[in-house]
Amino acid sequence: MTTRPYAAPVRVLQFGMGPIGRACAHALLLKERRGHVVLVGALDIDPSLVGQRVDSLVGGQSDVEVTSDASATLAAVRPDVVLHTTGSFLPSVKGQILDCVQAGAHVVSSTEELTYPYNKYPELSRELDQAAKAHNVVVLGTGVNPGYAMDTLALAATGVSTSADRIEVERIVDAARRRRPLQAKIGAGISVREFKRRRRKGGFGHIGLRESVELVASGLRWVLDEMEETLEPVVARELVKSKYFSVPAGRVCGIHQTAVGRCRGAERIRLTLKMFLGARDPMDRVRVHGTPPIDMLIQGGIFGDTATVGALINAIPQVMSSAPGLHTVTSVPLPRAFGL
Amino acid sequence: MTTRPYAAPVRVLQFGMGPIGRACAHALLLKERRGHVVLVGALDIDPSLVGQRVDSLVGGQSDVEVTSDASATLAAVRPDVVLHTTGSFLPSVKGQILDCVQAGAHVVSSTEELTYPYNKYPELSRELDQAAKAHNVVVLGTGVNPGYAMDTLALAATGVSTSADRIEVERIVDAARRRRPLQAKIGAGISVREFKRRRRKGGFGHIGLRESVELVASGLRWVLDEMEETLEPVVARELVKSKYFSVPAGRVCGIHQTAVGRCRGAERIRLTLKMFLGARDPMDRVRVHGTPPIDMLIQGGIFGDTATVGALINAIPQVMSSAPGLHTVTSVPLPRAFGL
Repeated sequence: MTTRPYAAPVRVLQFGMGPIGRACAHALLLKERRGHVVLVGALDIDPSLVGQRVDSLVGGQSDVEVTSDASATLAAVRPDVVLHTTGSFLPSVKGQILDCVQAGAHVVSSTEELTYPYNKYPELSRELDQAAKAHNVVVLGTGVNPGYAMDTLALAATGVSTSADRIEVERIVDAARRRRPLQAKIGAGISVREFKRRRRKGGFGHIGLRESVELVASGLRWVLDEMEETLEPVVARELVKSKYFSVPAGRVCGIHQTAVGRCRGAERIRLTLKMFLGARDPMDRVRVHGTPPIDMLIQGGIFGDTATVGALINAIPQVMSSAPGLHTVTSVPLPRAFGL
Repeated sequence: MTTRPYAAPVRVLQFGMGPIGRACAHALLLKERRGHVVLVGALDIDPSLVGQRVDSLVGGQSDVEVTSDASATLAAVRPDVVLHTTGSFLPSVKGQILDCVQAGAHVVSSTEELTYPYNKYPELSRELDQAAKAHNVVVLGTGVNPGYAMDTLALAATGVSTSADRIEVERIVDAARRRRPLQAKIGAGISVREFKRRRRKGGFGHIGLRESVELVASGLRWVLDEMEETLEPVVARELVKSKYFSVPAGRVCGIHQTAVGRCRGAERIRLTLKMFLGARDPMDRVRVHGTPPIDMLIQGGIFGDTATVGALINAIPQVMSSAPGLHTVTSVPLPRAFGL
């Protein structure tokens, strides 16, 4: 395939070398061979990774080594864009993002809470926006979910609507095909009692459903006055197995999570996420109740592990062509594949 | 539904009061009641329309009258945005678009050839881009097809791709449910001999398939070295009827059109459009052959007449938030419904 070359390869630093970060680095090295990007650095604090060559960790060809001092590395390699994949919660990664911004790098982050931070963290959002503007860079949170399957696609499905009353999104994921941390995150193998304990404690289940509702609402300028979230266990009816877990009948094999946005008592947005080992018919579905009615189905579903990497990498040209500041997926150009 | 109000209603002029233009005016008046836009003018050269009040033509409530002098009306009402729906071919509408630009108005046009004009009209594209930049406005060609169903959606379907080799889009439309001019445009009721005559003459069939291929290719930065288009009649096997046409067996009831883009002999983009009276299973389908594979289906298809209006109106905030110049749907923010 011949692709039009970019003026210069984009200098990208991978911040976080966990499973997703390593998958990003792998994909970046493939794109490096085509001249679209060049991997200039890799950061992680895990002592077992620091000092290792990236190519020894992910394959491909690169003499970049994993380092742990963010400020020093950022100053030394001066990336155009940082792909940031270290955590789900904004307060705990804020310092890392600010380090990148202050080094003059755009940030594309998989931090779920960053995909729509304005309601939950108004102060922190302002701080990030001001810092990004001061350093003439863009900060964007994205991923497959939140960031694409249950928000960007839902908004794009309204692209030709003259009116819309209600939006429903359903995502069914066979978690058995996904990476181990995801399987652990949804409680694979735990008891229902333990599930309830973790739910009470918080920070459990899929992070980002609330953010997806807020992205859809803000994209349509809908004012919601009520948001309701539910999180229930999916219990195995028979033994289900994945590469990493073996879940007997009666134990938890995943989650059934919903987020509903209402306005004056009327339901406007309903997101349903079912993610469990052995889910039979993986799919993504968006229904727009409006004019014209839209019923969009991704048959077989969007495979999340690969798609997260795609969402992050494909945002590279988007952040480079947007006005400085804190963005969401609704304020950058139409998402599409980059550097094929 | 409560929606967040815009700072001020957008002043919109409707340029062209044919079936699509009138449908736009109707939709604009509905949005005017919610404070998102205000219809400030309506232009058409048809003597049977000039002098008539818009609300007498489209319903709703408005004291705007249809006028025919574009320059005078534009100067008098000073619209922020013009919705332009007068023709398919760029050379014949270029003067109208430049009039709007010179009056300081953004232009959202349904002109199919404007959705990707760079290859077919490089000079004219430069002229429009320079004029738009000189007057600090945006010019954008869009619609349901080209502009959405076979290009924007196809690109959005690659939003999480880490690689993509080939893209296939199929759109099946039951033309019997569409407006009369569209049914006429696809040759409903003519003989196969007449179909072939019109095909030889050119300007017949669906306009914009080539532009959709070019939008997808340019959005992905793919360099195509070959483009092939075919246009075949769909022949009625039995009597098919619409509100406007009655087509006996053996006569033409519509079109089967394809556009294929290749690179070094390998097929990369294939668009298939079947639009005929009585098509049984209307649908839109996008398949991305890549990682992850994506198979997106719009069940029942996107109903075109309404969707064209939606595409044009939903582009209003997009042109207002983009940098001045000539744009395509790939360079403006994620499309989504506006002013619900």
